[in-house]
Amino acid sequence: MEAIQINCDMGESFGVYSYGADEAMMPYITSANIACGFHAGDPATIRKTIALAIEHNVAIGAHVGFPDRLGFGRRELQIHPDDAYDYTLYQLGALAGFLQVMQTPMAHIKLHGAFYMMAAREETIARAVVKAVLAFDASLAVYTLPNSALAVAAQHTGAKVVREFFADRPYTTSGVKMFGWTPEEVGQPDDCAKRVLHVVESGRLPLTKHEALTIQADSICIHSDTPGAPTIARAVHEALTHRGYACHNAVM
Amino acid sequence: MEAIQINCDMGESFGVYSYGADEAMMPYITSANIACGFHAGDPATIRKTIALAIEHNVAIGAHVGFPDRLGFGRRELQIHPDDAYDYTLYQLGALAGFLQVMQTPMAHIKLHGAFYMMAAREETIARAVVKAVLAFDASLAVYTLPNSALAVAAQHTGAKVVREFFADRPYTTSGVKMFGWTPEEVGQPDDCAKRVLHVVESGRLPLTKHEALTIQADSICIHSDTPGAPTIARAVHEALTHRGYACHNAVM
Amino acid sequence: MEAIQINCDMGESFGVYSYGADEAMMPYITSANIACGFHAGDPATIRKTIALAIEHNVAIGAHVGFPDRLGFGRRELQIHPDDAYDYTLYQLGALAGFLQVMQTPMAHIKLHGAFYMMAAREETIARAVVKAVLAFDASLAVYTLPNSALAVAAQHTGAKVVREFFADRPYTTSGVKMFGWTPEEVGQPDDCAKRVLHVVESGRLPLTKHEALTIQADSICIHSDTPGAPTIARAVHEALTHRGYACHNAVM
Amino acid sequence: MEAIQINCDMGESFGVYSYGADEAMMPYITSANIACGFHAGDPATIRKTIALAIEHNVAIGAHVGFPDRLGFGRRELQIHPDDAYDYTLYQLGALAGFLQVMQTPMAHIKLHGAFYMMAAREETIARAVVKAVLAFDASLAVYTLPNSALAVAAQHTGAKVVREFFADRPYTTSGVKMFGWTPEEVGQPDDCAKRVLHVVESGRLPLTKHEALTIQADSICIHSDTPGAPTIARAVHEALTHRGYACHNAVM
Repeated sequence: MEAIQINCDMGESFGVYSYGADEAMMPYITSANIACGFHAGDPATIRKTIALAIEHNVAIGAHVGFPDRLGFGRRELQIHPDDAYDYTLYQLGALAGFLQVMQTPMAHIKLHGAFYMMAAREETIARAVVKAVLAFDASLAVYTLPNSALAVAAQHTGAKVVREFFADRPYTTSGVKMFGWTPEEVGQPDDCAKRVLHVVESGRLPLTKHEALTIQADSICIHSDTPGAPTIARAVHEALTHRGYACHNAVM
Repeated sequence: MEAIQINCDMGESFGVYSYGADEAMMPYITSANIACGFHAGDPATIRKTIALAIEHNVAIGAHVGFPDRLGFGRRELQIHPDDAYDYTLYQLGALAGFLQVMQTPMAHIKLHGAFYMMAAREETIARAVVKAVLAFDASLAVYTLPNSALAVAAQHTGAKVVREFFADRPYTTSGVKMFGWTPEEVGQPDDCAKRVLHVVESGRLPLTKHEALTIQADSICIHSDTPGAPTIARAVHEALTHRGYACHNAVM
Repeated sequence: MEAIQINCDMGESFGVYSYGADEAMMPYITSANIACGFHAGDPATIRKTIALAIEHNVAIGAHVGFPDRLGFGRRELQIHPDDAYDYTLYQLGALAGFLQVMQTPMAHIKLHGAFYMMAAREETIARAVVKAVLAFDASLAVYTLPNSALAVAAQHTGAKVVREFFADRPYTTSGVKMFGWTPEEVGQPDDCAKRVLHVVESGRLPLTKHEALTIQADSICIHSDTPGAPTIARAVHEALTHRGYACHNAVM
Repeated sequence: MEAIQINCDMGESFGVYSYGADEAMMPYITSANIACGFHAGDPATIRKTIALAIEHNVAIGAHVGFPDRLGFGRRELQIHPDDAYDYTLYQLGALAGFLQVMQTPMAHIKLHGAFYMMAAREETIARAVVKAVLAFDASLAVYTLPNSALAVAAQHTGAKVVREFFADRPYTTSGVKMFGWTPEEVGQPDDCAKRVLHVVESGRLPLTKHEALTIQADSICIHSDTPGAPTIARAVHEALTHRGYACHNAVM
């Protein structure tokens, strides 16, 4: 039985502010990317989100972002590679402190928002992030876009790469459309599940009658703040398990 | 040869802002309390301060404060004991990430400013801090005032307590005067060194002809932002070593 | 026709985080207290909330809080009276900049959370706030608890005081219970409306068969984050207008 | 007697952190750009810096930056033009509150760091800033680089433009070198003063034997955090006044 991961960004609440359908998503995912207090999250939210993930037997990773709460880490910030290294390490450590006390391993790291996109594009940033990850824990899987600068930097140093496919975002010939998409482009939960199955089974995503993208995906991402996220997650989870894929943390 | 520790708050710079005589203090101390990014410090400052401490063979502890940069963690904030637990754990983890990568152990924890004073006074806060420390690393020494609520809570659970004497603060019959003191009350570096020697050798600090405080001290604290701090540190260090005490990390 | 104000805290969203039933409340209130970016709110939220208030012909005031986003300004912070002065002035100015551009007057100031409670209790804080208000705009009404230190300080200097009654909080013999109340103590929206009518018409709030509080109220407060807030607001608004009170900004 | 302004960034301290040679610079400048609490500064610092400027009869402007304290507003942040508008308005208002109380007019606005550079380059950002300035106070002078997008946007709408020349930065054929310069490129205070005189008197800055830049300058900028800033300021001030230019606020 082949295993396929489903990951979701979580723990993005802050103080009195609730954010994301964390509880509703947990039953359908294998991996939770937990915000570490820079772009979102706070110490209490981290603790509670870890507890929720443990309860659902969901693997835990660090969701590492820019120190820009007001912009939720979604705005590019021209940081120096040294900052990329330091910010990554600080957030990995902060999350790891809670994991250590709650006796749960850290499984992976996923950059958030603008940090994710910059590391996918810029080699110096990508290398600094990988350097921090390897120095901290060489067994961590690095989530990223296939063929990105971060994927290359990680592979180059022997770090484990997990290539993502976004179930809740439209794809065009130029790749995934992370921002500025419309619900129509994403379609219904069943459309999302169909795209996922296509990619998982064939390594290809048809765009038009004559065009298709080649996509290698190790993990399916669904954002907890996409409208209807839990319904999408359930549809994807059911489609995959129905077709015989293992979508639970136990087999990871 | 009896060992006596000298500790100093460090790594309290932030971004472009420099703070404290970190480099000048290092040769004279045994233990650096490094700010963890709440009341002061930031990821780059943490990394650089650890490197400086390693270079000087100085033991490293976490200097854990309130999330109040504007007030430098010096203002009481009526946090819930759960917050005390979470804030402590988050900061311990953040510092530990860097220490892990730089292959240096964490030796102790010292609360900062208003957090230090609240935990010295309030049992529920003290217990929450100790609970976080023990869960994170039971070998960490907990710096605190002798006989404080934090000392009691730590001793009660078997945590290692390090009782502090403040070389650069005046003492009155009601104890150490942390705020609102004048340079005249503190005196010259030699006066500071004399008080330290008295306390270390006799366990007593004379106040007037007829009055004295009984003080058990395991570590001498000098604040890096006290005017003339390096000179005080040198005077204290020289007085202690001259009298045969070991004041270097090697013997800790 | 006698006028009675109904005020509500608004504009407490932050970045991606939505907070409070601002839109749903607007039709039933006379006065919006808009967060100024310290405990909550941000520049875009301020602009949008002002626009919403203007659209509903609701008077606008500054909701001035502590610089503690993580605690939403609800935790006491031991600030110096000078800080109370400076924080008040900064937030008044920030809100006023938007009001100036949107050609709408500022009508009042209401402190938020722990700042509200501290100024109600501590004379030095109360006086510093009043000093800032008078220096900035002597025509601003100061919202506060009847008989509080802030009410006294404002009256003493000739500032206009608006005494609040909380429709969505229980009262006991020791006054309003701001924290730690249960929904049962608050009761249904009709219970809230009944209490409001009693206070407005008689200046008294019956607690038991034999006990009652004497309460002078110029404005009825309903918090936008109380569960069911819009329903409470509508019930209060309807009860008051049905009894012939004017509850719209036009008559203020 | 022709007037020439000398401006300096000020009020960039934060909490316990001191920054910049504000007091030492005041006697030699005509205009202080005061940080408004985003990239630097805080309510108390704003109040004290205004008082200092008033004492020295120095004109006051708002120094408006990005909400990035950790990076001191020096890192590009990909904000939306709406954010540029809102951030500008918020900071103008916050400073104006203090000025109103201290009965001193606001004379100008100068963007800080990365905001300054982005608005000099990107039309949409430049226009949003100018829109905020004009809506807030159409009499404010807008400081900027000659021929920048901000200069164009301001001129287009009738806003008053003040073109800056940087006394403490080297110029190359591609213009001013804001970052990555060396002290050797800047030279001694006398070299700075000579360059200033050349530009002020001839509108040209010689670079090599055969090359020169054409520069129209209305105000000379010296940064308070440039090493030796007060000495540079004095040299520039003396050179200008010696040559008969009026360098004091009275004639502005």
